[in-house]
Amino acid sequence: MFGITPSARLRPSPYYEATLAEGVTAFTTYNHMLMPTSYGHPEEEYWRLINGVSQWDVAVERQVQLQGPDAGRLAQILCTRDLSRCQVGQGKYVAVCNHDGVLINDPILLKLDEDRYWLSIADSNIWFWARAIAAERGLKVTVSEPDVSPLAVQGPKAEDVVAAIFGDWVRDVKYFWFKETSVNGIPVAVARSGWSKQGGFELYLMDGSKGTQLWNIVREAGKPWDIGPGNPNVCERIESGLISYGGDTDGQTNPFEVRMGKYVDLGVADDVIGIQALRRIHQGGVKRQQLGVILDGDTPTELGFFRHGVYRGEQRVGHLTNCIWSWRLKRNIGFGLVASDCATGDRVVVHKDGQRIEASLVTLPFI
Amino acid sequence: MFGITPSARLRPSPYYEATLAEGVTAFTTYNHMLMPTSYGHPEEEYWRLINGVSQWDVAVERQVQLQGPDAGRLAQILCTRDLSRCQVGQGKYVAVCNHDGVLINDPILLKLDEDRYWLSIADSNIWFWARAIAAERGLKVTVSEPDVSPLAVQGPKAEDVVAAIFGDWVRDVKYFWFKETSVNGIPVAVARSGWSKQGGFELYLMDGSKGTQLWNIVREAGKPWDIGPGNPNVCERIESGLISYGGDTDGQTNPFEVRMGKYVDLGVADDVIGIQALRRIHQGGVKRQQLGVILDGDTPTELGFFRHGVYRGEQRVGHLTNCIWSWRLKRNIGFGLVASDCATGDRVVVHKDGQRIEASLVTLPFI
Repeated sequence: MFGITPSARLRPSPYYEATLAEGVTAFTTYNHMLMPTSYGHPEEEYWRLINGVSQWDVAVERQVQLQGPDAGRLAQILCTRDLSRCQVGQGKYVAVCNHDGVLINDPILLKLDEDRYWLSIADSNIWFWARAIAAERGLKVTVSEPDVSPLAVQGPKAEDVVAAIFGDWVRDVKYFWFKETSVNGIPVAVARSGWSKQGGFELYLMDGSKGTQLWNIVREAGKPWDIGPGNPNVCERIESGLISYGGDTDGQTNPFEVRMGKYVDLGVADDVIGIQALRRIHQGGVKRQQLGVILDGDTPTELGFFRHGVYRGEQRVGHLTNCIWSWRLKRNIGFGLVASDCATGDRVVVHKDGQRIEASLVTLPFI
Repeated sequence: MFGITPSARLRPSPYYEATLAEGVTAFTTYNHMLMPTSYGHPEEEYWRLINGVSQWDVAVERQVQLQGPDAGRLAQILCTRDLSRCQVGQGKYVAVCNHDGVLINDPILLKLDEDRYWLSIADSNIWFWARAIAAERGLKVTVSEPDVSPLAVQGPKAEDVVAAIFGDWVRDVKYFWFKETSVNGIPVAVARSGWSKQGGFELYLMDGSKGTQLWNIVREAGKPWDIGPGNPNVCERIESGLISYGGDTDGQTNPFEVRMGKYVDLGVADDVIGIQALRRIHQGGVKRQQLGVILDGDTPTELGFFRHGVYRGEQRVGHLTNCIWSWRLKRNIGFGLVASDCATGDRVVVHKDGQRIEASLVTLPFI
């Protein structure tokens, strides 16, 4: 693995010191910040998420805050999902598109107040986007990056840990809903969410000086359930069919291509950015689709930077946007962004690292 | 040094294989791509740039292409520098600002044709920005990312190497001007530019499949001058006073604060984004300025992610945005973003890694 050279362009998270103390060994960069990606024991970290509980530094999930009398209006203009019934305390997974209907982020929208929203973003610059739109349309709204840094607690035992910290009321929090509260005077919003399908919460820390303190509160509270450090788990998220914006998408991807059509409401107002293009795309039909790919063979693959070509006979029909050894399926698996005439059950060939590997297309998620 | 975990969110450059063959040991990420930052011999790589010639994978300097009848109009709307006299074949260093006059990128603008421009960008998403503005203002222009990947040849002997490849005409190319040509059928634009003050060229490769081939052409041509691999050199660029957007700037920085006032033309039309705010800021005076900081002591510092506080007595007056051991000055040096009542010659104290280090403020560049 190559080293990552430090510079002030890449911000450490409020949990940086705590993750160093836990023995972090590798990072990725995301929204110009460092995100831990390994503590040196990948399989152990995976099973901890599947069977137990794991705590993650996901401060890189930054918030684009919209505040002011036109905040709600701007939120709807930016999101292709109908937000008219979104309540204070509720979150929604949304597709943010450009004017051509191309996906430019897939954040969680959180409604904190009638005039205050957060877009808890994936890895692209929605501050620039939102500020440009707000200024050009003359909206009365301030777009900012507040001091908010999520810490995820994920896995089947996550609810017990979070309840031990905040009380049993957290057991009643519905999926994507959240509540502002505090622990030992540290302000947090507790949300039932997280980038895994193993269940759990995200604690939105609202004071960056308290990262180590919050990390250790979770660490201590989690001891009876054998909590340990982890990170958004590439294997689990691929098994579970979760999208990584910028990895599983490219500069032409629209929401329909990557199984996000259900989050697009074509009936929203015409001033919602991208909706007119999406109506045309929906009517005309998409050219690509996202399917699972199960590669033949049982030799675990290594993570890589490249997208591998997917072929049907001699015809290239698309590419793999990720590929990993699944500890549960005992196969190398990945997402294929492939032509829309491909179908579940089709046999294909993946051209990977000089090899031609037979594979099958399947419906996502894998598990 | 920590590892960097591979994923498709981080694109390798067309020169990736070539840099692997050269023995690259570390990367940074920049515009969601990997940029080599070390070949394992930092001091040797530094002196090669200062005394000889060095070739760099700077494919991360991506191009935001503006094409169409309104391309020139959009270019001017985005740039706070007067472009009315910019000629085809000419480049200009520009400040791109948001509506509040905050710097959001400092690219080189290249005018390829009356209706085609590139913004050769620093590390922020100007595609989103330019597309939002173009769409909201109804301009007839397409904003895209063309297949263009610069390779820099830098150092006092760079001109000899580039002349050996393309001919002696390159010796007459003026600073920031460029010419489209080809070598062995590979399309490139040859520009006199580069992120160092040691002189040299950037070869804008216009066919990503030919990265290794172009790398090796430069490598072979450079042998008489003992060329070797390098990268945008943190030590040299700090000695030379070159700005790194996102490292030396933050979410409030305007061009006047970071010595870019000479690239702002306050007389451009009112529809240039940020110009009205910049006129107000210019009139009111800035609150911060960028000065050099020379730290006492002669123990070389290590690169880090953090910005260290700069104090005058007990009063915090700003912070260091970078810090490195200068092999020419034999001192640790950095840029201070400090209060505008600080002055060259002032003694300050840098709070760094638990230490309090005496230091002096100086005018930039250091050398």
